[in-house]
Amino acid sequence: MKNIYLLGATGSIGSQTLDIILKQPKMFKLVGASLGRDDKKNDHILSQFNLEIACLRSDQKKHLYEKKYPKTLFVVGDAGLIEIAKYPKPGICVNALSGSAGLYPTIEAIKHHKDIALANKETLVMAGDLVNQYINDYHVRLLPVDSEHAAIRQTIDHEDIDDIEKIVITASGGSFRDLSREALEDITLEQALSHPNWSMGPKVTIDSATMMNKGLEVIEAHHLFKLPYRQIETILHQESLVHGLTYFKDGTIKASLGQNDMRIPIAYALNYPKRSRNNQQMPLVDMHFKPMDFKRFPLLKLAYEVGETGGLLPTVMNAANEAAVKLFIEGKIKFLDIENIVIDQVKSFQNIMNPSLELIIQTDKDVQSSIIEAYGKR
Amino acid sequence: MKNIYLLGATGSIGSQTLDIILKQPKMFKLVGASLGRDDKKNDHILSQFNLEIACLRSDQKKHLYEKKYPKTLFVVGDAGLIEIAKYPKPGICVNALSGSAGLYPTIEAIKHHKDIALANKETLVMAGDLVNQYINDYHVRLLPVDSEHAAIRQTIDHEDIDDIEKIVITASGGSFRDLSREALEDITLEQALSHPNWSMGPKVTIDSATMMNKGLEVIEAHHLFKLPYRQIETILHQESLVHGLTYFKDGTIKASLGQNDMRIPIAYALNYPKRSRNNQQMPLVDMHFKPMDFKRFPLLKLAYEVGETGGLLPTVMNAANEAAVKLFIEGKIKFLDIENIVIDQVKSFQNIMNPSLELIIQTDKDVQSSIIEAYGKR
Repeated sequence: MKNIYLLGATGSIGSQTLDIILKQPKMFKLVGASLGRDDKKNDHILSQFNLEIACLRSDQKKHLYEKKYPKTLFVVGDAGLIEIAKYPKPGICVNALSGSAGLYPTIEAIKHHKDIALANKETLVMAGDLVNQYINDYHVRLLPVDSEHAAIRQTIDHEDIDDIEKIVITASGGSFRDLSREALEDITLEQALSHPNWSMGPKVTIDSATMMNKGLEVIEAHHLFKLPYRQIETILHQESLVHGLTYFKDGTIKASLGQNDMRIPIAYALNYPKRSRNNQQMPLVDMHFKPMDFKRFPLLKLAYEVGETGGLLPTVMNAANEAAVKLFIEGKIKFLDIENIVIDQVKSFQNIMNPSLELIIQTDKDVQSSIIEAYGKR
Repeated sequence: MKNIYLLGATGSIGSQTLDIILKQPKMFKLVGASLGRDDKKNDHILSQFNLEIACLRSDQKKHLYEKKYPKTLFVVGDAGLIEIAKYPKPGICVNALSGSAGLYPTIEAIKHHKDIALANKETLVMAGDLVNQYINDYHVRLLPVDSEHAAIRQTIDHEDIDDIEKIVITASGGSFRDLSREALEDITLEQALSHPNWSMGPKVTIDSATMMNKGLEVIEAHHLFKLPYRQIETILHQESLVHGLTYFKDGTIKASLGQNDMRIPIAYALNYPKRSRNNQQMPLVDMHFKPMDFKRFPLLKLAYEVGETGGLLPTVMNAANEAAVKLFIEGKIKFLDIENIVIDQVKSFQNIMNPSLELIIQTDKDVQSSIIEAYGKR
């Protein structure tokens, strides 16, 4: 029986994680979870699982929840996430939070000896070096919950890193893969939110359309697999069936494939090193591959440069993107403004190497609020 | 430094094995080899490698070779192959012999504590159960030298066999994949020998056109990976870039890909568990997959049934095919007669379960000679 702590239980990855926990009741016990704004969803979770600790978004209804679920300890907000991370029972912390808020809880969970199943990309993008240091110091396991990284992880497991020529992350191309840059000028939010292959949360769907998502994944892959950026390639693969590949120096290529279903990599991370029984069988169909187009997707090119540079720059890029996507979702900027804002911020920032965790978190806040300030009033 | 014994040094796999040994001179020493009918090729090998033992096809020129290469022990014929297999130095025996002649030397090499790199399909088709018994008893390693099996081996290494849903062997479809059965009526030898993707010996090229090759591979896979036939699938994949796949029960699929170059699986087997440095990089191109067509390729269907039945039947099927292909190459039968002969032999044979090695070898000879007798005079 593995104890599970689920941060971001009401989001897309969160609810799919709950599915898996329910399907394997003898395998997993949900001990703690952070909830969302929707009381109905929260009630559904609280009544299905006997949580020992639950984190609410705000203090407002805390007493109502406490009354209804007297056996559960209710905690609140960012501090509450940390309390879950610190909860004194061993287990796996599934970090399915969206955005930079995911970083600090990951580090606290590591420090409290929990294995990490990481769906929050920002954790490694912002503080990959620090996180790897903690992972090492505390001897915990870090497993990616992302179809691409879970795929690559499975193709390099038990292999010698010196035998690797390169890893390849596939990209579907996102919602607008068949449109030229010119045609992107007047894209609506609704268009941006309809991804051809994957059903995901809004932030990652927009990030797929700008290819920023793939950029964040490249930086994540660098930290997860300890490979230099020149050994990390991206390729367009419209079917999203091959999720990742590893090229070995002897001419062998290993690929990992699967349905477009996030429950597969989630179950992989939770069950590791064993495999679950999903019995989802995917027929092999024709598959298409195209070289990545860095002119069409300038944010991906930027992400490689930013990752290579390191220091605070990945935090700045990520924060600028997070704020810009928020503004786009709120209808305050146009689709192509996301790119412009991110590129401007990165180009004008005075980088600092080897930043502390505090500086990373502060910079993230500063960059986001300055952008929201500048564009938010429109 | 690994000692290599190479049976079938002058064939297609043999000469590619020599390439690899020459490229990694600090890694491998060719101790023994069996040569062919072409004196020029033989001379080339004998002068390049200081062989301790070499097997000639016949006694005829033995004294001439002995004079020219006084440091090499020359042995002859089938008995000579066994002497190489028994040679009292540890090492890897690469069995690249063509046809049923490969079986007995494999078993002797195992009994003399040599690891086996197996390119000879007949060994496992005829006597898979016995060979596995010997492999177990003598604690040697059996590595497949075949793109498909090497691929699958790499996708199931370190995995739990109970997690496997099925393995999938890809088939290019052979020389006539775009022709209907009717159009096969008057196929010439030359047409049959031009394989679209692979450069291989004549026997295996014809076997690819009839899909018997894939049938033999299915039976081999059953013995190599200890999986029942219902967990072994074949699929048409015209590019021959994906060589094999494993479907796991959690919904993950692992595939192994690579250029159409036999040196990759040969180098894999010789270097195992390490990897060589070939630096042959394959770009990802569009890939096509189609379900196997058992009506178009009846010998593949037969091979599944024969493998499932077991006993002497796989030996009979293999022997009938070997004789029929020989007759076709000699221009004595038509292409579609290969199928008819094989099917007739299998249907009319009174099967015997758990045959001894002697009975297997005798049956192989009897079936082959009866077919050559019956059709050879035409």
